[in-house]
Amino acid sequence: MAATSPGYAVTARVECPASGGATAELTTAVSAAGGSLTALDVVESHHDRIVVDVTCDATDSDHAARITQALENLPGFTVRKVSDRTFLIHLGGKIEVTPKVSLRNRDDLSRAYTPGVARVCLAIAENPDDARRLTIKRNTVAVVTDGSAVLGLGNIGPAAALPVMEGKAALFKHFADVDAWPVCLDTQDTDEIVAIVKALAPVYGGINLEDIAAPRCFEIENRLRELLDIPVFHDDQHGTAIVVAAALRNALRVVDKKLSDVRIVISGVGAAGTAIITLLLAQGATNIVGCDRKGAVHRGRELTDEWRTWVAENTNHDGRTGSLTEVLAGADVFIGVSGPNLLTGDDIATMADDAIVFALANPTPEVDPVAAREHAAVVATGRSDFSNQINNVLAFPGFFRGMLDAGASDITPEMLAAAAEAIADCVRPGELNPSFIVPSVFDTSVAPAVAAAIRRVAAGEPADH
Amino acid sequence: MAATSPGYAVTARVECPASGGATAELTTAVSAAGGSLTALDVVESHHDRIVVDVTCDATDSDHAARITQALENLPGFTVRKVSDRTFLIHLGGKIEVTPKVSLRNRDDLSRAYTPGVARVCLAIAENPDDARRLTIKRNTVAVVTDGSAVLGLGNIGPAAALPVMEGKAALFKHFADVDAWPVCLDTQDTDEIVAIVKALAPVYGGINLEDIAAPRCFEIENRLRELLDIPVFHDDQHGTAIVVAAALRNALRVVDKKLSDVRIVISGVGAAGTAIITLLLAQGATNIVGCDRKGAVHRGRELTDEWRTWVAENTNHDGRTGSLTEVLAGADVFIGVSGPNLLTGDDIATMADDAIVFALANPTPEVDPVAAREHAAVVATGRSDFSNQINNVLAFPGFFRGMLDAGASDITPEMLAAAAEAIADCVRPGELNPSFIVPSVFDTSVAPAVAAAIRRVAAGEPADH
Repeated sequence: MAATSPGYAVTARVECPASGGATAELTTAVSAAGGSLTALDVVESHHDRIVVDVTCDATDSDHAARITQALENLPGFTVRKVSDRTFLIHLGGKIEVTPKVSLRNRDDLSRAYTPGVARVCLAIAENPDDARRLTIKRNTVAVVTDGSAVLGLGNIGPAAALPVMEGKAALFKHFADVDAWPVCLDTQDTDEIVAIVKALAPVYGGINLEDIAAPRCFEIENRLRELLDIPVFHDDQHGTAIVVAAALRNALRVVDKKLSDVRIVISGVGAAGTAIITLLLAQGATNIVGCDRKGAVHRGRELTDEWRTWVAENTNHDGRTGSLTEVLAGADVFIGVSGPNLLTGDDIATMADDAIVFALANPTPEVDPVAAREHAAVVATGRSDFSNQINNVLAFPGFFRGMLDAGASDITPEMLAAAAEAIADCVRPGELNPSFIVPSVFDTSVAPAVAAAIRRVAAGEPADH
Repeated sequence: MAATSPGYAVTARVECPASGGATAELTTAVSAAGGSLTALDVVESHHDRIVVDVTCDATDSDHAARITQALENLPGFTVRKVSDRTFLIHLGGKIEVTPKVSLRNRDDLSRAYTPGVARVCLAIAENPDDARRLTIKRNTVAVVTDGSAVLGLGNIGPAAALPVMEGKAALFKHFADVDAWPVCLDTQDTDEIVAIVKALAPVYGGINLEDIAAPRCFEIENRLRELLDIPVFHDDQHGTAIVVAAALRNALRVVDKKLSDVRIVISGVGAAGTAIITLLLAQGATNIVGCDRKGAVHRGRELTDEWRTWVAENTNHDGRTGSLTEVLAGADVFIGVSGPNLLTGDDIATMADDAIVFALANPTPEVDPVAAREHAAVVATGRSDFSNQINNVLAFPGFFRGMLDAGASDITPEMLAAAAEAIADCVRPGELNPSFIVPSVFDTSVAPAVAAAIRRVAAGEPADH
């Protein structure tokens, strides 16, 4: 059974009989229904009754409803209302736009707005590079989506994607003091998206593409990189590749194997899989086999799309064929960026000794991590309720902090590799073990370390190995 | 000579001899050069010298340079560096994006981001109206420009326009708690601008078009109003019309004339002039003559553009012809939204008794306000250094606050009129006089009053006359 999560926390306001045992009955009912009680507050007390706010985590929305029903079913108890804490914190959105300048009096207004601002405008008109000095462009990133591949939810459209983009913007500010703004586009036409982002670019110091479906995302990214003089980063590709490379670096340290020696099987050759392959090859991996729903990608297969053809040409030099399960046998590393429950513990048992398993499909991994741990030396997922969570939050805030600080326009493979190394090295040698191959997402030293690595590469200094 | 302004404030760091008279010499030099000293801070003191920060306002950049040179010319004095206070406050931009939610621990992240956010996304996908409840759309306005008609600076492009749009966003938040974001578009193609703003709309509760040249601005506004279900407001048109109508309402109270009786001459029939004519006609004005560079607009003239034809058909029922100066004779009201120095005091002397003159061209009005005051009963400008500043800041923050609160999608003529009346009525009867026909831009009661008026109209209640 899935673990309860604060993402599914509810607060039920319950009217109870004023007997000594009322709160115990509530506690027992929540527990019996499988909920995790996190708070119990008596908010009203009368001679004949008390009113209690019962807050608990559930596994999903249906489970939350079952818990509430269990409270309602207690004889003499009435549920007055149920608040969903996740929805409560979303009311009115999660970010705001705040002035950095004082506007209290005429002098303030004359400098921040007319007439003073006209001189600043003219300075930028004369010297466009001054925009990075005299405007928000110095610190802004557009978080751009078309809503076509949002989380694991699919093509839910731009309005429904906005809560994710707002959350991303909040994370950008919290972890790296980057001012990010959601751009949720009501179009899924590649040409139009490219034209729009190009037109929006004057306000931004960087573009973070997000949750755009493959293969559209590749073309959009490539064309924008040609057109713009600010960095264009597709988080689903490069953010994921960075954190996977970071985790793999440390996992290989744990099992004492070398990237250049290991055989790696990657399930999923979409946006994330392709970017992971590119980065691992750049870092010295020599033996990678990519798999899609039809099994191993190899030169003998008829491949219709450009990026799968690229995978075939640049990986699987042994020409392995067969299903994912078949090519997994004997492999050292499994990286899944695909779908739920593709493998069993028995499949993992066929891998080489000291196997490494990254099952990153969300919310349900490619293989049950508990089963995988019986046969693999290191197991990681994308989930927060298992150890070794591989989360892009470790990468994108610091990455853009570094790019903005450096005023860099192009993202190079060296930058991606440097970011991965910086994240990996935030786990100190004394901390490294099979259950701790990546730093916590709340480790505030990660983003500054990533930013410093990017600045070094942008300045042409050697990476800090 | 123009007045000095804090918009042209400089701070010069000056090394001076350690004699008792050094600061007096600085004060005298600034004064002799025509600067207004605002601060004098001794920042270092040594046995043989002191270092003083001299801050003063100038009339323009050249004047600031002359003041600095005057300090440098003092025998024994050295100017170490000169800081421009307007540029200093612009460093790094004037707005930032701030999280409204806590992100300190796993529970926070589970609610604001994954996995909890997925439920919020799905709720919006099922019921798109929920976006106004669960996202920033409830409180956001896009400040959209193509940089084609910025302040009085002309077509300086999107990057150079950004300081103005940032300033506007800061004003939106400061006066009305609206989260506004600059959208400076690197295109001046009407079709492309319309398509882009339409595509951006999911994130916003309103669109504020800004500094877009006529006639493009009319078509963009009209087409977007057709396409979008959020309000589209062109501040140069409707914001200006609202504050002009507010000021005129009070000016007519001062001279005890009625809008329906007065003859009004409007210089400039571009974006602002057309919108002013529309609003004044809706409020009951009967006698308006619009003028462009060729003089009065009338049905007998050959007019090539749509909006000038509209002006000819809807104004000047007497068929007046001739130059601006000629039609001004005998008029009760002059409203200038055109260019500098088109009229003299003598021209104003030809107007009717108790004339009203709004000379709004910036930075140089259509007529010198001091000369105009010799012959007119009420004079107003767009400048902050004369009384009666007619400034859009009085209108747009409260207007959008009201539209967002009401969840209104269409801007009606009644809303514009109600906003004008609300602004006018912020000047209490006891305060009203020829030098105080509009409230101060720092009067914090104005935006809430405008917002309340808009909410009333949106709710279908009668305007508060």
